[in-house]
Amino acid sequence: MTATAPRITAVDTYDIRFPTSRELDGSDAMNPDPDYSAAYVVLRTDAGDGLEGHGFTFTIGRGNDVQVAAINALRPHLLGRGVEELCTDPGLVNRDLIGDSQLRWLGPEKGVMHMAIGAVVNAVWDLAAKRRGKPLWQLLAHAEPEWLVSQVDFRYIADALTPEEALGLLRARREGLADREAVLLERGYPGYTTSPGWLGYSDEKLTRLARQAVADGFTQIKLKVGADLEDDVRRLRTARAAVGDGIRIAIDANQRWNVGEAIEWTNALAAFDPYWIEEPTSPDDVLGHASVRKGVAPVKVATGEHVQNRIVFKQLLQADAIDVLQIDAARVGGVNENLAILLLAAKFGVPVCPHAGGVGLCELVQHLSMFDYLALSGTTADRVIEYVDHLHEHFEAPVVMRDGHYTAPLAPGFSATMHPESIAEYRYPDGAFWAADLAGTEQAA
Amino acid sequence: MTATAPRITAVDTYDIRFPTSRELDGSDAMNPDPDYSAAYVVLRTDAGDGLEGHGFTFTIGRGNDVQVAAINALRPHLLGRGVEELCTDPGLVNRDLIGDSQLRWLGPEKGVMHMAIGAVVNAVWDLAAKRRGKPLWQLLAHAEPEWLVSQVDFRYIADALTPEEALGLLRARREGLADREAVLLERGYPGYTTSPGWLGYSDEKLTRLARQAVADGFTQIKLKVGADLEDDVRRLRTARAAVGDGIRIAIDANQRWNVGEAIEWTNALAAFDPYWIEEPTSPDDVLGHASVRKGVAPVKVATGEHVQNRIVFKQLLQADAIDVLQIDAARVGGVNENLAILLLAAKFGVPVCPHAGGVGLCELVQHLSMFDYLALSGTTADRVIEYVDHLHEHFEAPVVMRDGHYTAPLAPGFSATMHPESIAEYRYPDGAFWAADLAGTEQAA
Repeated sequence: MTATAPRITAVDTYDIRFPTSRELDGSDAMNPDPDYSAAYVVLRTDAGDGLEGHGFTFTIGRGNDVQVAAINALRPHLLGRGVEELCTDPGLVNRDLIGDSQLRWLGPEKGVMHMAIGAVVNAVWDLAAKRRGKPLWQLLAHAEPEWLVSQVDFRYIADALTPEEALGLLRARREGLADREAVLLERGYPGYTTSPGWLGYSDEKLTRLARQAVADGFTQIKLKVGADLEDDVRRLRTARAAVGDGIRIAIDANQRWNVGEAIEWTNALAAFDPYWIEEPTSPDDVLGHASVRKGVAPVKVATGEHVQNRIVFKQLLQADAIDVLQIDAARVGGVNENLAILLLAAKFGVPVCPHAGGVGLCELVQHLSMFDYLALSGTTADRVIEYVDHLHEHFEAPVVMRDGHYTAPLAPGFSATMHPESIAEYRYPDGAFWAADLAGTEQAA
Repeated sequence: MTATAPRITAVDTYDIRFPTSRELDGSDAMNPDPDYSAAYVVLRTDAGDGLEGHGFTFTIGRGNDVQVAAINALRPHLLGRGVEELCTDPGLVNRDLIGDSQLRWLGPEKGVMHMAIGAVVNAVWDLAAKRRGKPLWQLLAHAEPEWLVSQVDFRYIADALTPEEALGLLRARREGLADREAVLLERGYPGYTTSPGWLGYSDEKLTRLARQAVADGFTQIKLKVGADLEDDVRRLRTARAAVGDGIRIAIDANQRWNVGEAIEWTNALAAFDPYWIEEPTSPDDVLGHASVRKGVAPVKVATGEHVQNRIVFKQLLQADAIDVLQIDAARVGGVNENLAILLLAAKFGVPVCPHAGGVGLCELVQHLSMFDYLALSGTTADRVIEYVDHLHEHFEAPVVMRDGHYTAPLAPGFSATMHPESIAEYRYPDGAFWAADLAGTEQAA
């Protein structure tokens, strides 16, 4: 306890990189050699309660330092701010950060600067949930609809969703919330796994991992496609043979194609009944996705992990361009903007199936899907959270999978907190791992 | 002359900031206090010819350091590269930079990372034009259509414009090119001025500057709007009274509005015959712009200074969302992407009226409009380049206005080179101006 109201005393940032490119895991048609990384931020206070707010942007290696520089540029907006005010109304700091007119020029609301805002805003929510002693999903689901609506920035989306409509959606779903929470706590939230489907795996490994996924309780797997059509036909045939007809197989092109190619390529794989085609083309191309969707039905179109903000999601919905909306916890401007996106999806009746994987994305995004289930969608039908078994060991409260489901996290916060030992080891370039690695490289050179 | 083929030996970056926020110039409804800044890059070689490639990203102050960090992240792609190869085919380095899969995650092709690519690519073009001894507009206009098409990345735009169509557009306009060049050299390219219209000017100052603009030969002026409707009505009435009916008055909301507000507000000003409404809403909102265009006709809709890349421009054209396309020389991925955008505009028959102002944007973008006139549009009818009388004195070859027209620059290069004295004075935080200023602030504190 301090005599005066507690304040934010430090905004510490860390450039953390894991050398994942040395294995083949995580490679796809656009990202052959990712080093899964986090531009990580810790908000410290003088509250004396030992609680910190943790957040991060996920990147895949080079440029993680740029992302850290962007978070550093936000520091003056946080330092000295009252902790209680921040945690009672994270929407306030969200608006301040987005509204900094000089920094806004660097987006607006997209790319490096916007992801930095997302990291900081998520750290505020982590702190808020820890102070309330609740996991974030529960804090959100138990919150009053009016307060949730106050957390949303309706600028540029009011033509598709008004505050009144948002309030109506939340109020309508209050009924049965306690029952759904009981179900969630018992069964968890369904996941699907991308682990079998990375490019570069042999057919034997693909078959083995696909069968393992089914044995583990998953009812959907995902395969990366888009590098070579013949290979894709063979791999999809192999996967279908391995899992049988009852399991959904999604395919993911990671933005590899033009619109015309996307339609042709997807249709060439249609015989194997792919459930959705993910990121068929540029995430910026709303009209392109609408054309692809018309051209590949009944295969569904999914996108979102690289969609920059609520404004593009709004248009994807307005243009009937997607069947599945894939939020990402660390791409847009944090929890507040994801609330807007979840509300938009509910308004348009499009299921949300989050992107995850990377480092820490599973940990974060499960909270948003669980809130979606309890407070907005009311169902988990046709809704799955991506799961990849990567790097969970670096988190204090890693996700726990059971029978293909994410179990509801009970630890207070947003599950964003990384072990101090992991930070010390993988901080770039001066953590123990990298210091040794870079010294070795220099010695070899 | 060096014995071996010359290479890039240094990629030097500078954080340059001008304290423009201390005046009222440049303030609008979204940007009340910009400090016009440049994240500046110089490519140095060992060619021994004294030639350097200069480029920059324009920002408005805070975050300029983040932009510099992003340019630094690109350095390994340039260092050691053959100068001749670079200058013969800037498209190659453009594709390399956009294709760096790890850095691509930070966009893709948008925001801080993409603007950094634009700065570097533009610096390559500056060097290429200097080595050829030509101003960039002339290098481009005299180039073979096949080579120009090879400089364009058609990924994600091929559904709207194929390489064959692009080639056809360029070939069709070869006729009469020499005549148009003679006209350009004699008369220049029409400009319009935003100088009278900043928020915060008194009605007397607005009247005086508007009349001065007409006396200076401008046939179009622009007023900032969107902060207060009553004020806007008064200011627009004042401006119309000052210039009469024969002068076009564009209005610019700098993204201030939602879609519905944009339509209402613009229509409330329609009595004063505004020529275009610029940035009525988010630059990301293609469908929103299409709605606004339908709702405010016959007032035209213009946007582009914050449009992130060719993919969004493509959609604005596909959706009939704009009447006027406003390229910016330093927002997208440099000359190569602007070639794609100019070709798209030509295909769709939409006039290009560039955004300029800031620091150095007039210097750069004039080259692109002059190329557009000579090689694509074939006309300057309904085409004007924005002009603001700010900070030109810091450039070695500043724009020269004559009778409301940009005179064609004759100095080799892209007109991007800033005086070394200006860099030394305004480098942040250690240039002479800022060192003194920050010391004064500390002393006062």
